[in-house]
Amino acid sequence: MLTKNDCTALDAQDQLAALREQFALPDGVIYLDGNSLGARPKKSLERVREVLAQEWGDDLIRSWNKAGWFDLPLRLGDKLAPLVGAGPGEIAVTDTTSLNLFKVLAGALHIQAGKPETAGRRTIVTERSNFPTDVYMAQGLTEWLDRGYRLKLIDSPEELQAAVDSETAVVMLTHVNYRTGYMHDMRAVTAHTHAQGALALWDLAHSAGAVPVDLNRDGADFAVGCTYKYLNGGPGSPAFAWIAPRHQQAFRQPLSGWWSHAAPFKMQPEFAPANGIRRALCGTQPVLSLALVECGLDVFAQTNMAAIRKKSLALTDLFIRLVEQRCADHPLSLATPREHTVRGSQVSFAHPEGYAVMQALIARGVIGDYREPEIMRFGFTPLYTRFVDVWDAVDILADILDGKKYDVSAARDAVT
Amino acid sequence: MLTKNDCTALDAQDQLAALREQFALPDGVIYLDGNSLGARPKKSLERVREVLAQEWGDDLIRSWNKAGWFDLPLRLGDKLAPLVGAGPGEIAVTDTTSLNLFKVLAGALHIQAGKPETAGRRTIVTERSNFPTDVYMAQGLTEWLDRGYRLKLIDSPEELQAAVDSETAVVMLTHVNYRTGYMHDMRAVTAHTHAQGALALWDLAHSAGAVPVDLNRDGADFAVGCTYKYLNGGPGSPAFAWIAPRHQQAFRQPLSGWWSHAAPFKMQPEFAPANGIRRALCGTQPVLSLALVECGLDVFAQTNMAAIRKKSLALTDLFIRLVEQRCADHPLSLATPREHTVRGSQVSFAHPEGYAVMQALIARGVIGDYREPEIMRFGFTPLYTRFVDVWDAVDILADILDGKKYDVSAARDAVT
Repeated sequence: MLTKNDCTALDAQDQLAALREQFALPDGVIYLDGNSLGARPKKSLERVREVLAQEWGDDLIRSWNKAGWFDLPLRLGDKLAPLVGAGPGEIAVTDTTSLNLFKVLAGALHIQAGKPETAGRRTIVTERSNFPTDVYMAQGLTEWLDRGYRLKLIDSPEELQAAVDSETAVVMLTHVNYRTGYMHDMRAVTAHTHAQGALALWDLAHSAGAVPVDLNRDGADFAVGCTYKYLNGGPGSPAFAWIAPRHQQAFRQPLSGWWSHAAPFKMQPEFAPANGIRRALCGTQPVLSLALVECGLDVFAQTNMAAIRKKSLALTDLFIRLVEQRCADHPLSLATPREHTVRGSQVSFAHPEGYAVMQALIARGVIGDYREPEIMRFGFTPLYTRFVDVWDAVDILADILDGKKYDVSAARDAVT
Repeated sequence: MLTKNDCTALDAQDQLAALREQFALPDGVIYLDGNSLGARPKKSLERVREVLAQEWGDDLIRSWNKAGWFDLPLRLGDKLAPLVGAGPGEIAVTDTTSLNLFKVLAGALHIQAGKPETAGRRTIVTERSNFPTDVYMAQGLTEWLDRGYRLKLIDSPEELQAAVDSETAVVMLTHVNYRTGYMHDMRAVTAHTHAQGALALWDLAHSAGAVPVDLNRDGADFAVGCTYKYLNGGPGSPAFAWIAPRHQQAFRQPLSGWWSHAAPFKMQPEFAPANGIRRALCGTQPVLSLALVECGLDVFAQTNMAAIRKKSLALTDLFIRLVEQRCADHPLSLATPREHTVRGSQVSFAHPEGYAVMQALIARGVIGDYREPEIMRFGFTPLYTRFVDVWDAVDILADILDGKKYDVSAARDAVT
């Protein structure tokens, strides 16, 4: 049986342990929700003062050039790129994940429509369990295009093999599932997608900064992702879009705002697309929220995704083992794969009273979250989560379950 | 002839003079570019610390409910509403002006397509001199819809009367022109638009907080606008969308992200639109940039648009008069209407070397901006601009012009 001392020993050997000091974490809290909103890098307070007092307050309009505000989406994209196996000039940090998905899905359909051999394809394959906004945006796009595109929703990853066929225009998947933490094999799925003549679009919301991703090596076509989860960019910080270099020339998307114009300051009345990844831009970006993305990325520059992955698996393995060891008498069922190759950086357990149990955990300072139906989600962020945190979290969970210290009549708030 | 003493006397009588203290303005700068990026409310530094340190840092994910992050777009919309003649539940502060224009233009076309008497209309009337991103977004939308919609670009406001006809689906105009400061008669244009069976969509980027606007009284159908210009929300702060209450029930738009879902946390795989102005939302918003919009709006709560308009006209009148008095020997031509009823809160002068002259002004601390071709733009923000600033700005302009103290070979930077 593992003990708390074993966990303390793991922390003592942890190569990433020192990075925790770079985050502002409240006392009395074990934060296991970095998969929803990452913790605050301490440096962000100094940086936001600089953007506010100096760049906005003193330099005012001059900061568009002087402070590089106008170039932030691409500069931050280049800084993010190594974390997902992308190169320079391939990522823009901009807008929201929903909007970026709309852009790259539109771009993918446009490219398919432009080739005689794929022009007739009308199916977009995705999962019913995909994060809903991805499905909603695809529904919005296809309904408005009104050209016969339809979503084919599959109910398990095993169906992918058969679902992707000669009718498929695009396969649109979230790499790591938000509820279960199941991780697709990006290389294999992309290869199968290409073999069927379709394009592969990946949502990295629960992957970027959480698991190693290699978009170029795995042959992906398009990707989007989030900066406010594992990348610790701040609440609602702008998302990102990636376009494979081989598609940039043909890429077009309908949200053709002035930031994607070839000559935005010439103020011409005709749209002409910029070259490269600027085509994924649209309008003026929220500079303050955008600038803080850099503070999160700067922490990653001090380590690498292999080290992060190693600790992530150790943390999630430990959590699963301790929960099964100490809560065996309770109706918990593991929703996350045990197999490392298909597990992201979270662990989800279903419990019939999952909502009430999670509320009790939060009241005791163990912050995870709840997703319908029955799922208690625990995210593990190797940059600031300790092995002893895992012990303490399970200790509190066991106490709540053993003592039935949860209120099944608790009202359900909105939880993001 | 006016003297500097006359300007000092005007400041002494100015009812709004005390509000200047609420803005952080750098020493040695006369800031006449609030029409591009508003100055920083001093309170924003304290507010951003609160959002960062407490709401994000300490309360983490709980702030979506506890700090009301999720409700910010509508709460700020209600606070902005009185400035543009809107009611509660009619405005969402969200995304960018470009994106909001895309949404409401799509919504307007959808409503027109749904009525037998207007379903066949395919023309969107706008101005060639409209801010380019509005035209680009309309081009993007109509090209992708591929249903025969076409933009009819007019070259002067006088053409509106004839251009709007039984083929017109939507009239899409920027209320105050970004280059010239020309202001449309919203009530008359909307009435003519309605008489022809079309819908009126107004971009208030250079109107909100600058001139009195009364969307409901004037019968407008849709509007969008910017919060980082005259509303002083901060660089790139989220924009706003307004939907007339009578259109909210029928309103649909293709950017159907989870924030516009009727039950966003039920995680259903089918999109179902929320009621009311939430239909204009899409994805997760940049909280930090969004929260600071409130600091700008709080200054407006201490005065009213009638007082702001009175001072705005006095400032622009004074500037025109002083420039014409002191720079009469130079090839300056006024691009802004003299008539109050059609003037916004800026003054633009064309000069053959406008770019170089503006660079010289900026180097001397008089910050306006330049717009192709030849236009020097000066924005007047009554909340923090003094009459003596107008005097000093013209004094420096006259010195630059009289001494030819500008470098016509100056390289052209991107200027937003």
